[in-house]
Amino acid sequence: MKRVPVQQKVLKENDRIAMELRRLFARRGVLALNLISSPGSGKTSLLEQTLQRLPGDIRASVLTGDIATDNDAMRLARFGSARQITTGGSCHLDAKMVESALAGVTAGQLDILFIENVGNLVCPAGFDLGEDAKVVVLSVTEGDDKPLKYPNIFVRSEVMILNKIDLLPHVPFDIDTVYANAQKIHPGIEMIRTSCTTGEGIEHWLAWLRRRLERVRSRPAAS
Amino acid sequence: MKRVPVQQKVLKENDRIAMELRRLFARRGVLALNLISSPGSGKTSLLEQTLQRLPGDIRASVLTGDIATDNDAMRLARFGSARQITTGGSCHLDAKMVESALAGVTAGQLDILFIENVGNLVCPAGFDLGEDAKVVVLSVTEGDDKPLKYPNIFVRSEVMILNKIDLLPHVPFDIDTVYANAQKIHPGIEMIRTSCTTGEGIEHWLAWLRRRLERVRSRPAAS
Repeated sequence: MKRVPVQQKVLKENDRIAMELRRLFARRGVLALNLISSPGSGKTSLLEQTLQRLPGDIRASVLTGDIATDNDAMRLARFGSARQITTGGSCHLDAKMVESALAGVTAGQLDILFIENVGNLVCPAGFDLGEDAKVVVLSVTEGDDKPLKYPNIFVRSEVMILNKIDLLPHVPFDIDTVYANAQKIHPGIEMIRTSCTTGEGIEHWLAWLRRRLERVRSRPAAS
Repeated sequence: MKRVPVQQKVLKENDRIAMELRRLFARRGVLALNLISSPGSGKTSLLEQTLQRLPGDIRASVLTGDIATDNDAMRLARFGSARQITTGGSCHLDAKMVESALAGVTAGQLDILFIENVGNLVCPAGFDLGEDAKVVVLSVTEGDDKPLKYPNIFVRSEVMILNKIDLLPHVPFDIDTVYANAQKIHPGIEMIRTSCTTGEGIEHWLAWLRRRLERVRSRPAAS
């Protein structure tokens, strides 16, 4: 995304709504996560696994963004609460879309809101959705150089999910290299290795979610 | 990409430069191809194979776009003429960037100009670079639903390269399904299956390039 004046105005308006969302999430004790990746990195599969395996005392919901189709919401609805946001051409979710879609999911109590962004490793990084944290999902088939080539999203993400690790024997991908590249761009970024096919690593992701939820719950309530 | 007024002005200026580029390519008998895919679908690997295996009577050059790093141009320069365009944050190449970069590659005679776009299945579809054809590269690890979810690029591409077919035994991907989905979005789109690891299918891609180059050579010269 190249910032020209009107886009700065759009971003300012986006930031205003995102701040309102952030206050809303804080007030309700909701952990909001913005999941960003290339198309096909496995965000939806990760969320399927997550909804199925989250302990019963954690109530979760998903907003899933796509340019076209409601396939992902249909997939996720089998395992929990999911709502599609169809962007109609836009390459990213914005705070307004999230605000509108939220009307349908915040009726009951909610602990974690997963926002699955449009498959795009570039543009979504620039739009605050009021989330507590951005989570970048990178699959091992995409190459270990990606943190260097798409730095913005790695700088802004608290954690990098390294997905499809079951495919490691079949692809030229080095875990030490991707970790070093990610640390170069964002010192301290956490890495969690997962496979939604074998289930490997999902428990680490669930543990991270629980820890992160505790942080949300222990923060002072917003005024 | 959401079109707001200033973006329409940007697009209009882009179209003007793209038309100039198209005339230039026509005058010089150059086949210009705009390669678009998600990050890590294998565009650079495909171009490495292509530069190595193109017959000696076809002179090719690559302009390769990335947000950051010149890794791809370094990789490609081992096999032929390659020049990096670093977009400095922009999620797509535009015609102006191609025009500026071309200064360095059109000195000698050129038959095929490959323009490797930024890894992004969304935004590059909206920017004409003066190319003869767009080529969408989809790897089998990304899922067979992608033509439905990212229709714009499939509508505008003459051919879909289905890459990393060596990984088919390890991923849930159905070739008949992706073909049907692509045809639904763009009836008549060609599909070429390739693996840059085993070399399978590369000869079909080279044959397509040769046929496409013949079409360019047989067209009446632009005034």
